[in-house]
Amino acid sequence: MNIAIVGIGLIGGSVGIRLKQTKFCNKIIGVDKNESNQKKALELGLVDEIATLDEALENAKVIVLTVPVDAIMQLTPYILDRINDQVVIDMGSTKINILNKIVDHPKRGRYVAAHPMAGTEYSGPEAAVPNLFKDKNMVYVEAFKSDEDAFDLADAITDQLEMKSTFMNAEEHDMHTAYVSHISHLTSFALALTVLEKEKSQGRIFELAGSGFESTVRLAKSSPDMWTPIFKQNRENVLEVLAEHIKQLKKLHDKIDQEDYDGLHKLIKKSNKIKRIIK
Amino acid sequence: MNIAIVGIGLIGGSVGIRLKQTKFCNKIIGVDKNESNQKKALELGLVDEIATLDEALENAKVIVLTVPVDAIMQLTPYILDRINDQVVIDMGSTKINILNKIVDHPKRGRYVAAHPMAGTEYSGPEAAVPNLFKDKNMVYVEAFKSDEDAFDLADAITDQLEMKSTFMNAEEHDMHTAYVSHISHLTSFALALTVLEKEKSQGRIFELAGSGFESTVRLAKSSPDMWTPIFKQNRENVLEVLAEHIKQLKKLHDKIDQEDYDGLHKLIKKSNKIKRIIK
Repeated sequence: MNIAIVGIGLIGGSVGIRLKQTKFCNKIIGVDKNESNQKKALELGLVDEIATLDEALENAKVIVLTVPVDAIMQLTPYILDRINDQVVIDMGSTKINILNKIVDHPKRGRYVAAHPMAGTEYSGPEAAVPNLFKDKNMVYVEAFKSDEDAFDLADAITDQLEMKSTFMNAEEHDMHTAYVSHISHLTSFALALTVLEKEKSQGRIFELAGSGFESTVRLAKSSPDMWTPIFKQNRENVLEVLAEHIKQLKKLHDKIDQEDYDGLHKLIKKSNKIKRIIK
Repeated sequence: MNIAIVGIGLIGGSVGIRLKQTKFCNKIIGVDKNESNQKKALELGLVDEIATLDEALENAKVIVLTVPVDAIMQLTPYILDRINDQVVIDMGSTKINILNKIVDHPKRGRYVAAHPMAGTEYSGPEAAVPNLFKDKNMVYVEAFKSDEDAFDLADAITDQLEMKSTFMNAEEHDMHTAYVSHISHLTSFALALTVLEKEKSQGRIFELAGSGFESTVRLAKSSPDMWTPIFKQNRENVLEVLAEHIKQLKKLHDKIDQEDYDGLHKLIKKSNKIKRIIK
């Protein structure tokens, strides 16, 4: 069995190198429109060979989509139009729009919507690592609409990646990811912009940067090519969370502004309840 | 030589355990008004003995202050009134107010303002670790106002902690820490409040929490007893940074709201410049 990976960056490259490590398939075929990515993916051993998308559709049993979500929106109908019994696994970060787009497609059953809750702030083939997915969650969305054999094959790959799995509908998925992933990136981008703005006038500002700053701002290194389409596809949920987050920041601001330090202490103590969630 | 540590939590405990490890002094005397902290500090070997503040002032050559900054404001004049040639090292996170308070104190020379840019989101004696300070920055503030022998003794302790050092005036220090430390905590507190709010109605939200969420929200586990006084002491700087941060978040919000995805892409790309700073 051959597996094609469309988009050989952080996610696609990490899937490739891990599946090569476990010898799950005969060949990993890499598809990427960027020539420099093609070259690096071969050099780094993330894939066995490079092919065009059409060649890959002819020679692979499984097609894994790990391009930005706007490209997934374009490619998925094109691919479903051209396959027979192959399996298409979409590993994008948003699901409602893509699922609406293919809801009546005759090959809908060959498509599996899966979102690996794993990543780093780095991008491109050089960022790929075989253990990126280990012990993380694979979220299947509307799995009941996939053919049983298609789902089983996707789930076998999830096993190879050493992931746990969970099931959601598309509305739940897109709303939850807005809260636990998309908003974290937006706060990091904004924090970086805030501090970079100040640095212009105060060059020494970063001498003091400690690990707290680093951990809240590191996501601001993330790729705009990947993230802009995510915010576009998940616009409504993201706007809702962002408005709520700004409201909470304003509350903290107003407590300090009004010198209501008892109120501030209470808010911080309330936020400490996050300990229940992250150990 | 004996060293007294006033406040045996994350910072004080870590200083104690490290100085015991390097055998820099005869005895570490722990001072803490909390009995449970006293007991734990002894059990964990962070200090050699427990004493009252007045006993410590009689028996120690160096007094290290690692209590919250409002307590430092109260204790420092009290301590300076009572010492002879001992050295007082203030390791608090804000400096302008405390320096103003003791500017004319006859014992000002015995006081060294030093801020170790190190910490974790955990607090209390159990959080203490000997290598907390390794390779981090110790910021000396208005060091030129300390007696030479007092500064040299403080700097010898900085060496024992394996820290680098840097010098700033109080205005620079308080402004820079607002940007690279205090704001990170405020965004984390607000992010935790945002998500906890949503969790009430959407219980499964945290199943999806990945490492990105964890790194931006982990500081929300930080102690309100430590942080409320910091925001109080550094109120003006913190309000300025917080207003700027809210402005940047609103910019991102408006780009998404107006579906200006080119503009959004540009902002994210600009924020990527943080790569220059954090590797």
